[in-house]
Amino acid sequence: MAQNIYDDDGFFEGYSGLPRSVKGLDGAPEWPSLQAMLPDMKGRSIVDLGCGFGWFCRWAATAGASDVLGIDLSSNMLARAAADTSDARITYERHDLDHLALPAASFDFAYSSLTLHYLTDLDRLFATVRQSLRPSAGFVFSVEHPIGTAPTNPGFVTDDAGVTTWPVDGYFREGPRTTNWLAPGVVKQHRTITSYVQPLVRAGFSLNDLVEWGPSPRQIKEVPEWKVEVERPYFLLIAAQLN
Amino acid sequence: MAQNIYDDDGFFEGYSGLPRSVKGLDGAPEWPSLQAMLPDMKGRSIVDLGCGFGWFCRWAATAGASDVLGIDLSSNMLARAAADTSDARITYERHDLDHLALPAASFDFAYSSLTLHYLTDLDRLFATVRQSLRPSAGFVFSVEHPIGTAPTNPGFVTDDAGVTTWPVDGYFREGPRTTNWLAPGVVKQHRTITSYVQPLVRAGFSLNDLVEWGPSPRQIKEVPEWKVEVERPYFLLIAAQLN
Repeated sequence: MAQNIYDDDGFFEGYSGLPRSVKGLDGAPEWPSLQAMLPDMKGRSIVDLGCGFGWFCRWAATAGASDVLGIDLSSNMLARAAADTSDARITYERHDLDHLALPAASFDFAYSSLTLHYLTDLDRLFATVRQSLRPSAGFVFSVEHPIGTAPTNPGFVTDDAGVTTWPVDGYFREGPRTTNWLAPGVVKQHRTITSYVQPLVRAGFSLNDLVEWGPSPRQIKEVPEWKVEVERPYFLLIAAQLN
Repeated sequence: MAQNIYDDDGFFEGYSGLPRSVKGLDGAPEWPSLQAMLPDMKGRSIVDLGCGFGWFCRWAATAGASDVLGIDLSSNMLARAAADTSDARITYERHDLDHLALPAASFDFAYSSLTLHYLTDLDRLFATVRQSLRPSAGFVFSVEHPIGTAPTNPGFVTDDAGVTTWPVDGYFREGPRTTNWLAPGVVKQHRTITSYVQPLVRAGFSLNDLVEWGPSPRQIKEVPEWKVEVERPYFLLIAAQLN
């Protein structure tokens, strides 16, 4: 099963202070790119895999979704999601995505933000998602870019000449990576882009778009700390559709 | 127009000595992965964009293609391709792919190996390829992986602890990169994976597969110098199909 780090109190406290936790979707720099990949929500049944505080679920309902199911492993996150939600079209359920079951042909669109890099078996999850979707349904997800998850010791390095690089190693050594992000011992699963794309295709999806997020000049102006993110791809966003 | 570095005598001499030039497809470590993405050649009209010495053209003819058109910018390469070819189904033509025109609905499959990273305008090329293909035709190409083309000063670095990394910078600064590979002043165009995928989709292709090449244990055993290529993705292989 996936590590439930969001129920670690120290991690949860740190995560709760991030701009994306305080400001919601507007605090997530990749949101404009992700939003551009979404279909119209009007009248659609939506499932959100790794819904966290429910920001996307509430956005989808406001955008006209008929009903939204948000799924997460973390009791901490689901408690705040429920407290922040007063829309009867939105339901939250607690499940481990590595062992998820979903009703057949029940959703028009599946969404997942920065969650799948915690999972060990994408073939299983994508097959579960696929059978839960109605014909021609879409699936949009974001993950940390594999260039970000690959390194043994991730971090930017600035040399004597002032050149900042993101040193990559272990790209083809797929599997767990343990980092100290917000709390010690956070485990993410590193896989190549190939290992995101091929399970999707095997599950019967076709790929509509693949976007590597980098900061826009405007984002760098507004949040100067994003400037370094022009050096390496930070997020990977994929839009797929049922064949 | 694209730089015609293959007609630089020093570069051409160096390139001619590479395993892929001496042994052909079997000397190219990514060939088994690329071959696995190809459709059946039998009875098909093929176009090869950047055919070099014609190894793929001859392979396709041997595999049953009805006719093969190989296109390259380099007179040096086309001269050797012609000298090495004695199959009337194969034709070679000299064109700059940045200004290519192709007859409409004439081919069943388009192929390009390690060429598109020299070109400046993929939207133009992909539209040209698209209109030259018959319905449901496929298009498979390989390029140097963007993680390889991005860095200002590309090269592996081994630190005091013996950890070898490939430092990445400038990933989102797309455009020309000048390196001294086989000859001084070789110009390649760096673009992100997104900037390979989106022009394909815009041209009316759908993506069937995306493979990042890394060496297999067997390849590392046979050619130990490939071992370092598990640290970063070296080649990007894409299979697309007309919608």
